[in-house]
This record gives sequence, C-alpha cells and structure tokens, in this order.
Amino acid sequence: MLEQSKTCATGSIEVNGREYRLPASPIAVICIDGCADEYIDVGISMGRMPHLARVAREGFRGMARGALPSFTNVNNASIVTGAAPCVHGLPGNFFLNPENGEEVMMNSSKYLRAGTILAAASLAGRKVAFVTAKNKLLELLSIGMSGISFSSEKAGEATIEKNGIANVEELVGKTPPIYSGDASVYVLKSGVSLVAAGLADFLYLSLTDFMQHTYAPDAEESIRFYEELDAEIGKLIAMGVIVGATADHGMNGKTHEDGSPHVIYLETFLTEKFGDGFSVILPITDPYVKHHGALGSFGVVHLPEKYEDRKEEVMQAIWSLDGVTEVLPRSIAVSKLELPADRTGDIIVMSGRNVVLGRTPGHHDLSQLEAPLRSHGGRYEEMVPFFVSRPLNEKYRQRSMGDIRNFDIFDFTLNGVQN
Amino acid sequence: MLEQSKTCATGSIEVNGREYRLPASPIAVICIDGCADEYIDVGISMGRMPHLARVAREGFRGMARGALPSFTNVNNASIVTGAAPCVHGLPGNFFLNPENGEEVMMNSSKYLRAGTILAAASLAGRKVAFVTAKNKLLELLSIGMSGISFSSEKAGEATIEKNGIANVEELVGKTPPIYSGDASVYVLKSGVSLVAAGLADFLYLSLTDFMQHTYAPDAEESIRFYEELDAEIGKLIAMGVIVGATADHGMNGKTHEDGSPHVIYLETFLTEKFGDGFSVILPITDPYVKHHGALGSFGVVHLPEKYEDRKEEVMQAIWSLDGVTEVLPRSIAVSKLELPADRTGDIIVMSGRNVVLGRTPGHHDLSQLEAPLRSHGGRYEEMVPFFVSRPLNEKYRQRSMGDIRNFDIFDFTLNGVQN
Repeated sequence: MLEQSKTCATGSIEVNGREYRLPASPIAVICIDGCADEYIDVGISMGRMPHLARVAREGFRGMARGALPSFTNVNNASIVTGAAPCVHGLPGNFFLNPENGEEVMMNSSKYLRAGTILAAASLAGRKVAFVTAKNKLLELLSIGMSGISFSSEKAGEATIEKNGIANVEELVGKTPPIYSGDASVYVLKSGVSLVAAGLADFLYLSLTDFMQHTYAPDAEESIRFYEELDAEIGKLIAMGVIVGATADHGMNGKTHEDGSPHVIYLETFLTEKFGDGFSVILPITDPYVKHHGALGSFGVVHLPEKYEDRKEEVMQAIWSLDGVTEVLPRSIAVSKLELPADRTGDIIVMSGRNVVLGRTPGHHDLSQLEAPLRSHGGRYEEMVPFFVSRPLNEKYRQRSMGDIRNFDIFDFTLNGVQN
Repeated sequence: MLEQSKTCATGSIEVNGREYRLPASPIAVICIDGCADEYIDVGISMGRMPHLARVAREGFRGMARGALPSFTNVNNASIVTGAAPCVHGLPGNFFLNPENGEEVMMNSSKYLRAGTILAAASLAGRKVAFVTAKNKLLELLSIGMSGISFSSEKAGEATIEKNGIANVEELVGKTPPIYSGDASVYVLKSGVSLVAAGLADFLYLSLTDFMQHTYAPDAEESIRFYEELDAEIGKLIAMGVIVGATADHGMNGKTHEDGSPHVIYLETFLTEKFGDGFSVILPITDPYVKHHGALGSFGVVHLPEKYEDRKEEVMQAIWSLDGVTEVLPRSIAVSKLELPADRTGDIIVMSGRNVVLGRTPGHHDLSQLEAPLRSHGGRYEEMVPFFVSRPLNEKYRQRSMGDIRNFDIFDFTLNGVQN
C-alpha cells in the first residue's frame, strides 16, 4: 500500500481563498453524519473503538463548531468547500425561493456557489473518490470533479460514465438498504477497497445518520455500529492513509419525559394567532424522512406581505413559545449564522435541546417514527467531534485551542499534521 | 467501610418541590469546576482515568445542560438547590442592585432564596459534609446545614464551632495554595478521609477551575490533574459510595489565532457610541481573578435612564459587534435563561466560543494572565459532563435521553440508580 502512496500527486491547491497542501500520503476525510460526541465517548469507554481511541492518544481529538443550521447538506457543502453557507449558498436541504414563492429541494449542484476541494484535487492530479450513503449528496457536491463518485444507496447502479467506476458490488459487496447502519459502513468499506486497489488517494467519505436518529449512544445497536466504523477507519490508517474525521451535526433526543415527540407546530401557531399567509420552511426536509418525520430544531418563517411591518410583533409571539431558544430577524441571522441572504426567510427560529419545530400536524407523519424522536438542526447540535489521525504540527495545535470549525477538517488533514 | 454505610439515615426529603430518596449507602456529588467534556475525553483515551472510564462503562456518562450564565456560583447554587437561578436567586457572582445602583458581590447566603439539599439531608439525620476549594462558595451555600463544611483554601483554620470539624490538616494534609490543582485534589481527598473516618455519608465536593483556566485538555498538566481526581473518585467508589459527578460550566480558549485574548470591551463601545451612563456588569467577577482577568462570555448592560426608550437601538448596536452571539432584552432573558428578574440588567449579551466580554480596558489587568486566556460564561460553556457511578434504573435511563440538567445530579444520584 505504501508503494501506492508514493505516487500521489503533491503540490498545493487553492479553494475559496484557502490553500491546501497535497501531501505524498493518501488522505481520507470522513463525515460521520449525526455523530454527537456521546457516541464516540461510549464506544471508546467500552473499548470497542480501539482505532479512534488510538487517534485520540496519538493524533488529535477535539470539538469543532459546525455550520448552522446543523443539517446534512449545509455541513457537507461546508466541508467540501472549506467555507461557510454564505459562501457556498446552501442554507438547508430546502428553501423557499423569494423570486417565485416556490419551495425548492436543493438537491442539485446548480445551487452550489463555490468550488470544491474535491474538484480542485482531482484537477491537480489526485485520484479523488467521493463516496456517500445518500445519493442526493453526490448529485449536490460532485460537480467539477473527475475520478470516482458513487453512493452506497445506488452502488449497484454505478457506471464508468456516470460514476468513474463500475462493478462496485464486486469490489465492496452487495448494495445495502439506505435505512440501515450498513449504508454507512459500506461507504467506509468502499474507501478501504478503493485505496487497497490503488484507485483512490484523496477520499471524502460521507455517511448517513439513520442509526443516530434511531438509537441513543448507549444502545447496543449504536455501539456495534460504531465498532464497525472504527474497524474500517483502522484499516485506512493501517494502509498509511492520513484520516480526518468530523460530523455534519450532533443529535439529541427530542421528546417529553414520557418519550413522546416534543414538537412546536410553528405555522399552525402563527396562523391561529395572526391569520393566513405564513409559511414555515423546515430546511431538514428531504426525501428521506422516515427516521425524523422532517422535524428539526431550526425553522424559517416567511411573513405574508401585509405582516412585513409587524415583524417585531410576530417575533415577540414566537419568543413566547416554551422551547424556542433563539428568534432572529433575517439581517442578524444572515450575519451571525453566515447564511446566504437571498435564500432565507424573514425570521429564523431555533428550539431547545429536546424540542423540534414542525409546520402543521398535517405536514408530519409521526406514525412513521419507529423509535423516540431524535433529531438536530439547532444550536444544541452545532458542536461535533473532530479527529486527525496524526499528531498536529505546532501551528495547528495552537489553532486547535480556538474556535475550529468542522469545515476546517480538510485544512487540518492536509496542512495540520507533522511531516 | 460498608459497615459504616449501614448506619446511614434513610427515608426521603423534599427540597424546592422535588423529592429525594435517602439511600442506605453513602453518596457523594462532585462538581468538577470548569470541566469541559474534552478534559474527560483526553484522560480516558490516555488510559489515565480508569475509574471514570469504568463509571462510563458500568454506570452512566452523558452530557447535561448547565444553568446560564455558565458561572461557578450560579451553577453551584443550582446543584445544591436542585433548581434554576430564578428559584435560588443567584444570577452571577456579582450584580448591580437596581434599588440603589450599587454593585454587589453575591458571596453571602443572604442572597440565596431557596433551601439546599444539604440542609435538608442534615436535618433528616444524614452526616453531611460540604467541602469546597474556594471559601466563598462555602459562605454562600452552607446555610441551614449542620455537619461538616470547610474549604481547602482555609482548611487549616477550620474549627468545630464554625466548620463542624477541626484538625483538618491532620486528617487530610497541609492546606494547599488556592491557585493550584492541589486545591481541588484536596477537596476530594477530604471527602475520602471523611467517609473513611465515618464522619460523613452525604457529601458535596466542589472543586475549583484554576487548572482548566490555565491548561488546555491535552496539556500534560491537565492530564496529570485529572488522573489525581480520578484516583480519589476511585477510592470513594471502592468504599461503597454512590458517586455523581458533573460540572458547573465548560471552558474554551478565548483567543485570536495568535493566542492573544479576544475581548470585546462592551462598556467602552457603548460609551463611545452613545455617551456616558452605561454600566456593563460582568457576573464572572469575583475576588479570584488572576486566572481569567474577570473576562467571561456573558455581560449584563444597565442603560442610563435617558436611554430606556432607545433600548432597541442599543441592542442593534451590540448585535453589530463581531463575536457577539446573543442579545436579549431583560424580559426574554429572564424567561429563557430562567434568571431572577430583579437581579439582572436591561440587556443580556453572550459572546462566541472564543470571545469574551470586557467592561473597559482599565477594568481588566491582562498582565496577570500567565497563559492564553481560557474562560466561560456563555452558551458554549453550557454543556457539561454528567456521571453516575451505578447503572441507572429504567425511569432515569429514559430521562437521560432528554434534556437533563447539571442540577439534576442529586436527583440522579439519589433517585436514579438501580437498587
């Protein structure tokens, strides 16, 4: 394997104003979707994540601040561009286009406003592989890159023309179901197989959070899942790969003490209090809602025209709701949360650690939930773990004591390790 | 030792509307001052906290939400009363009395508005011991209790009349300096000695955060310090004590990338922008400022009378400052942060993970700082670790998946473990 690593293209690339060194070793950045730090804590304490435990001892383990809203598309876009949402243009999975009032699913790269590190690395001669669990992320973020890109969701359908690789099932195994832990493990197994076969030396491996939505950190199902992830990470490290790992967002139980979902139906509340015409966009909404019912801790209120002068009054009403923790007008939200101003609404709302925002009861099919609701999207899922498999150099050790972001992970993995 | 535990008074007590079972075993609740979860992560990963690692495996380890502002007095008062600041009355170490405009250090129990679990347990016949590092906490929170109470700061001065114990130095060792790790280790050693001598069976042991203000989690000084704490916790558990441990607040680097303090001088800013008469109260201020220069991530603005109608304009100006993350008028702050309404100011301000609020440069002697500034007070130091040394019963395991608070620690330790 180390022979293979000698052939890596070196030099450096510049992406969105940041410079990234291309080291002689293969590198892999992993986004463990929905990885609240507690999952790592339990796995390591149980002795069932020996490889990440060793990374914590011999490399770096810390906490990083993600982008808000703490959703998957937003943070994956930040990680691959090394930039905040105001730069890459994605403020959620979903937005209401103010130009025409249409609600738009942002599952296409046409919404992306910044180039990716993956594209630049492939242009610079690296053998880039981008493997995701959900196919939607691939369509969104593989723009401009050459190399290999496929999802575990559609592994069996991969073609040379579309994905830069065929016969994935022969290399890695049978395509797993998307609502499973295997959908994530398969992504890491793919990374291991691609490196082992000499097909990739610059990898982005992005998992799915079905397991974290479904199981608490100390459930045996979670521990076994993380054990499997850890084993694959261990294989990458053993092959000489520099590994960086972080998460897009954390995960918290969103329930009352009896285990029932703790939901504030914000559009219902505003309609009952003020009248028709209010839209509440929940940017967690995507085609995969079985495990969270499209309920998250971040909502965007669009006011009807006649209420534009009464924004302050509407904000006060939202503040009065138990479980609401932050209410920001667009101007402040755009500046403080680094959001694209033209793709958000009039009022941004975040809810507490155990509270989610809904639209109306009719918008959410809670009967699909198979376990007590766990979700994300707000301030309490902003902080995520951050690992680099090798010791940090002095400059990055200093930086690690400040406000590092999850979208610094390529920077730390490429520029931050000791040579 | 277990013989001794058989003599514990049982039954139950009610404090501030919550019921606490008095188990037959001795119990100890520990507040590890300034214990960001990263300190535990490093210690456990290094294999140097074997006892808390075992607690994580065999008992419970999770994250709890502290009270805001994330300061020592506020959260210690919450822990011993099992209640939020609006109940116990302490919104900081320091407040401006609106009745007379005086700035008041809240180091006296006369400011406490709620009874403590310690007082109730001692009335119910438990042998209560309350040991702190800083003497100020003792004066604030030992009201109404009989039993033993002393600080490591003044261990050598303890008398039967005042502290319920004399000759502490003979029992535990020489009084340590307050600006040291030993000031905290001594508190735990005291707990071990008191249980071993049969002098206490219901303990609250509250440490100091000098080490966390001074050293990052991966500094050898931190690791050694936590190793020592862990050893004492191991001794308590070995003696049959049920141990609960949490923190009052977390801790973050508050620096620019070059390591210099990242400070917003809020009173200076408001005075320059609007004129004289603004007071900014920093409720971290206390007599022990050497390690943080009285700089924290929470500030309280008192408006001059003539500005009461221009509050919205002042809030907008504060929002414009880079590094400010939350700006709340009193009414909302009181409701959302559960603060006592008569002991806070007109506008509440919180700053980011690596940013602190100052008053004016003249109010803060940065020359006293011996290391890059680390501090707390805001939202990013609200989440803290939470340990219970024995397995949780089913009811509390369910509760642990929700929004548990650090001031639920007596509840979990007394009511939450399997019998």
